[in-house]
Amino acid sequence: MPRVGVIGGGQLARMMVPEALELGIELHVLAESDDSPAAISATAVGDYRDEATVLAFARGVDVVTFDHEHVPQSVLRALEAEGIAVHPGPDALQYAQDKILMRRRLQELGLPVPDWATVANTDELAAFLADHGGVGVVKTSRGGYDGKGVRVVRSAHEVDDWLESAAGDGPELLVEELVSFRRELAQLVARRPSGEIQAWPVVETVQKDGVCAEVIAPARGSSGRVAEVAEQIALAVAEGLGVTGVLAVELFETDDDRILVNELAMRPHNSGHWTQNGSVTSQFEQHVRAVLDLPLGATAPVAEWSVMVNVLGGPTDGSALVDHYPAMLAQHPSAKMHAYGKTPRPGRKLGHVNVVGDDLDGVVYEARAAAAFFTTL
Amino acid sequence: MPRVGVIGGGQLARMMVPEALELGIELHVLAESDDSPAAISATAVGDYRDEATVLAFARGVDVVTFDHEHVPQSVLRALEAEGIAVHPGPDALQYAQDKILMRRRLQELGLPVPDWATVANTDELAAFLADHGGVGVVKTSRGGYDGKGVRVVRSAHEVDDWLESAAGDGPELLVEELVSFRRELAQLVARRPSGEIQAWPVVETVQKDGVCAEVIAPARGSSGRVAEVAEQIALAVAEGLGVTGVLAVELFETDDDRILVNELAMRPHNSGHWTQNGSVTSQFEQHVRAVLDLPLGATAPVAEWSVMVNVLGGPTDGSALVDHYPAMLAQHPSAKMHAYGKTPRPGRKLGHVNVVGDDLDGVVYEARAAAAFFTTL
Repeated sequence: MPRVGVIGGGQLARMMVPEALELGIELHVLAESDDSPAAISATAVGDYRDEATVLAFARGVDVVTFDHEHVPQSVLRALEAEGIAVHPGPDALQYAQDKILMRRRLQELGLPVPDWATVANTDELAAFLADHGGVGVVKTSRGGYDGKGVRVVRSAHEVDDWLESAAGDGPELLVEELVSFRRELAQLVARRPSGEIQAWPVVETVQKDGVCAEVIAPARGSSGRVAEVAEQIALAVAEGLGVTGVLAVELFETDDDRILVNELAMRPHNSGHWTQNGSVTSQFEQHVRAVLDLPLGATAPVAEWSVMVNVLGGPTDGSALVDHYPAMLAQHPSAKMHAYGKTPRPGRKLGHVNVVGDDLDGVVYEARAAAAFFTTL
Repeated sequence: MPRVGVIGGGQLARMMVPEALELGIELHVLAESDDSPAAISATAVGDYRDEATVLAFARGVDVVTFDHEHVPQSVLRALEAEGIAVHPGPDALQYAQDKILMRRRLQELGLPVPDWATVANTDELAAFLADHGGVGVVKTSRGGYDGKGVRVVRSAHEVDDWLESAAGDGPELLVEELVSFRRELAQLVARRPSGEIQAWPVVETVQKDGVCAEVIAPARGSSGRVAEVAEQIALAVAEGLGVTGVLAVELFETDDDRILVNELAMRPHNSGHWTQNGSVTSQFEQHVRAVLDLPLGATAPVAEWSVMVNVLGGPTDGSALVDHYPAMLAQHPSAKMHAYGKTPRPGRKLGHVNVVGDDLDGVVYEARAAAAFFTTL
């Protein structure tokens, strides 16, 4: 039986567990702690930055993949040096780990990105802002996620702390134009080492405070050119960067009708959770198949519309999500709950609700109302 | 977090694992062996007939349920005497454990069953056969499954061994008319302790050598009266017998257009595996919800047709199911594989394939062709 090793025991690893089990594939997880969301499949607990820990874990599996993109390049290279299959590999992952590398590579590939520049000091930043209407989005090249490591600035001094850090051994900075967008989209694809690629329909994502709050699949009004362009971009990214496994490309649909690449994630992604109930093949099954270089599954939707709403924060009264199931499940018999086994904490992603159906307004209402049983408490 | 304890570590327990995980509910399994299909959630390994073993296991959970119906009444009563919730409870389970009790009770409830009688000796059996065209189906009241404990007889001496055993301490015998049926149906429902019941559409089952081979959901041409009658029967059984959790009622659709109850199963059932990919709520999720007395989920199909084909026996050349995935998955990207983690053996249920879609011929073809990658080897 093939063994897939996942570094990181978060909710993404957790949601691979059911898919691997149904396929009859052994999943091993290197978790951060004993009570990680993916604890049920944890075969080791340890630090993913420690080469010896990761090597010992990886020697017991046929392929290594990831719950997150934070494993250092040095550790990834050490795995490859031992002949261990790693998907996505370090050559691809570096672009998900470093936004400057990513922007540079996408530009080389001729893909549409916001205007951007690296900035090493206040003067360089001030010059960029002056050229872009006095506003820009400064990002640390490394270490950011869910809105962290990102600041919208109107003065070059708003990131003095980051500039100081970058001058030392902190992450380099880049600045991007503040894109005036109509909405955000995400295009999910999966690619296997031997080259096959499958794409799901492009989706619409709604962010709140830099965190994904809601996904509508497919994106409204996206049956034509928008869907084609989004898919072409994601296929070009997957091939151009040599991504294996699931790739999520976050996109801006600008006010002037351009599609620009915002961020990349080389793993199952929040924008693809709808596939668990809304697609013939979920992103978690597809990821497991892809990293094993098995043929990919069909990505057709099972209903006209799928909506995912995140459960963020959760009850503040000490109750657990499950305490609210009797009320929620009674009112929303079609809502599919996905809980991550985490302790509630303000803003924390605790789970999500999927609803599918043929009437968009009804589906959006059901998903929001079901999730609200947990998020407004 | 509520804990559900499942006695028995077979594929039915295995397939509850993903559903419990997604709901954030802890599943504990009392398995028969270390390498049982549900090993991933096994918290104990031991004999389900041993009261002390089962009690020790059950004290660690909030509700006990089952992978099979073989736990002795004495053990079930001991659990209840300790105040442990058991669903389905012993009062209901006795009817799934003893076919004579079942036939008698269904008759009391006025439900349609084949003609039947208990038989203690050759003369009684011969008399029944003489009254029923010289043929009958003899069954042991206990211990039968998948065609075992069932014989079609044309002479009263064909079950001399069973009669001799019954005269000692073996199971009692009953004989039933050999029903001339057009096809077999199965009606799946779920009932929670507080009374709520939900039914899935009636399905058509195809048996080979007494083992379920294929399921078509819904049963062809069953939109009208047949579906209503099947559902009414199953609801009456669930309520009349006080079943909690999932109940499968196997039915004959006779050549003269009657619907008769054949067998009962008080647990998720092979005839309901299609719900994993074909229904808003799968039978495994529903069972977990029901035994916890949580509100039940919607049972609507997600496509016009769902077909399940069992993988029986498997490769005889020493290869594993997964060795045949590259060929199967490449040809059948819409087929959903469910593997049970068992070693191939002639006739053994190793897994199943589900396919859903709107064109029945296409769906049947895909499911059969996908399963054939494993079953004809």
